[in-house]
Amino acid sequence: MPQTDRITPFGQSTPAVHAPSTLSFHDDHAIILDQTALPYRRATLTLDTLDAVAHAIRSMQVRGAPLIGATAACGVAIALRSNADDASLKEALTQLAATRPTAVNLQWALDRLARLLLPLPASERADTAAREAHRIISEDADTNRRIGEHGLELIRAIAATRSGPVRVMTHCNAGWLATCGYGTALAPVYAAHEAGIPVEVWVSETRPRNQGLLTAWELGESSVPYTLIADNAAGILLARGNVDLVITGADRVAANGDSANKVGTYLKALAARDNNIPFYIASPASTIDFGCPEGNGIPIENRSADELRLICAPDAAGHIQAVHL
Amino acid sequence: MPQTDRITPFGQSTPAVHAPSTLSFHDDHAIILDQTALPYRRATLTLDTLDAVAHAIRSMQVRGAPLIGATAACGVAIALRSNADDASLKEALTQLAATRPTAVNLQWALDRLARLLLPLPASERADTAAREAHRIISEDADTNRRIGEHGLELIRAIAATRSGPVRVMTHCNAGWLATCGYGTALAPVYAAHEAGIPVEVWVSETRPRNQGLLTAWELGESSVPYTLIADNAAGILLARGNVDLVITGADRVAANGDSANKVGTYLKALAARDNNIPFYIASPASTIDFGCPEGNGIPIENRSADELRLICAPDAAGHIQAVHL
Repeated sequence: MPQTDRITPFGQSTPAVHAPSTLSFHDDHAIILDQTALPYRRATLTLDTLDAVAHAIRSMQVRGAPLIGATAACGVAIALRSNADDASLKEALTQLAATRPTAVNLQWALDRLARLLLPLPASERADTAAREAHRIISEDADTNRRIGEHGLELIRAIAATRSGPVRVMTHCNAGWLATCGYGTALAPVYAAHEAGIPVEVWVSETRPRNQGLLTAWELGESSVPYTLIADNAAGILLARGNVDLVITGADRVAANGDSANKVGTYLKALAARDNNIPFYIASPASTIDFGCPEGNGIPIENRSADELRLICAPDAAGHIQAVHL
Repeated sequence: MPQTDRITPFGQSTPAVHAPSTLSFHDDHAIILDQTALPYRRATLTLDTLDAVAHAIRSMQVRGAPLIGATAACGVAIALRSNADDASLKEALTQLAATRPTAVNLQWALDRLARLLLPLPASERADTAAREAHRIISEDADTNRRIGEHGLELIRAIAATRSGPVRVMTHCNAGWLATCGYGTALAPVYAAHEAGIPVEVWVSETRPRNQGLLTAWELGESSVPYTLIADNAAGILLARGNVDLVITGADRVAANGDSANKVGTYLKALAARDNNIPFYIASPASTIDFGCPEGNGIPIENRSADELRLICAPDAAGHIQAVHL
């Protein structure tokens, strides 16, 4: 079975945008980019047990709704290599489902595997799960490409109305690092950059986990101009006319279109509305939860209070330390 | 001439709320609490030259609109001790006015001194300036007390409608540390606490300078319950009904009521409006700029980009280090 190769984006044979391998799956193990070490250090982790995969998702070594779903699928396949009976399969599904509550892609991937695997004899499950995990990964990359194509038209229309670069605001990280391809919210940005349309990105710090630093890092790797801002600064930038459109990803979209995304997205949406700036959610269909009629039904994850007071930063030797504010 | 003593708040002879001395003026020098060392270390600084006062304001060793105004007044008086001719007076006024652009109290205090001192012979200026600085300090403390009395009635009215504590949200620091008395936004909170009305405060971190940590520290010193939150979390707390009212200070209020305050205040105001939660600005009259018809005319301070990436935190030995994120 082939390794999962990153799909070449937007029809080019040599992508101008370089994406790191956020997830590479090898049937009995997966290799991930450790996102808790970024942007300070590029490190990979090998996940070869169910526990390692569950820990990686829970601790945000892998993060981003689409990437979490794909990683969970790999986790099921890895678990079934050692034991594929009904009890082991159900245990794997349950353990992975409990890692992060809000991102529906996780449950979507697990449900997809459950439907496929439960009717099968145990002997066929591991190979089938691995094939399906590869399929989820490549589908996600393909979906990213198509999100980029749709979003490119929005950016192209704005570019036609002004002389300077199109100024996109985003929140959190919904780029390469959050998916198996070129991202959701950032896919249109990368597509525009590759199409030669000048774009600039306002990157909010995204406290308390500072995932904006991940967005800054990946945009920098692709030579897309960006400015890191305090989350608090989003309002004044929108009010002053410094933003042409806002694009974020989503953890879950309810059937009525209500969307849950990283905390702070609501404040940006309010400021965009108050200033008549268009605001888009860029998500694959797997993020839509048709079983959830409206936003109030979306479970919201509460994480440790330590995330507010402990900040990771490199010391003089470049080692990452947790600093207690 | 007496030292400036803190006014006993709310008519009590022994305040339940303990306020540190943010500014103590002794005619030829001022002693301030170094707010760049807080909340990690309680340190005082002696300012005995015009340059030292200007540096303290610019570097935010003293901060908060009312406190900046009072400190600038002390700075003029200190400068005039060595030379009180017209050129020296004007130079002191100009140097101090340039330290921080947004807080109008600074210009208000300097204008008040200019009007008083310019007509006087040089020999009378130093003593007159010192008396006026003391007067500004004690007036500010008295104003704080009255803001507390007015705000107390708002909190009392809410307390009458619910059984639990009244939940106040604030932004940045507009308490003891920002004034010569009990604060502006926090004066009603302290008044309620002293009146035996249970209050709890949502304290936003207030990136990029993290002045929310100062608010957390001073509330903690007064045993007022508080919860430190990421700025991004303000929206969901307001949407979920976890906040009864929002009170912030202001750097400047235009003649039409438009108010400028620490970046991020606008986002909280939008979320309060979206959820029908009352939002109050608590300010002394010296914060109102009747010469400025509306908010767009208020100059907004831009500070160094380093403030976003450099975070101050204590090392293992308790020394405060700047950590580069």
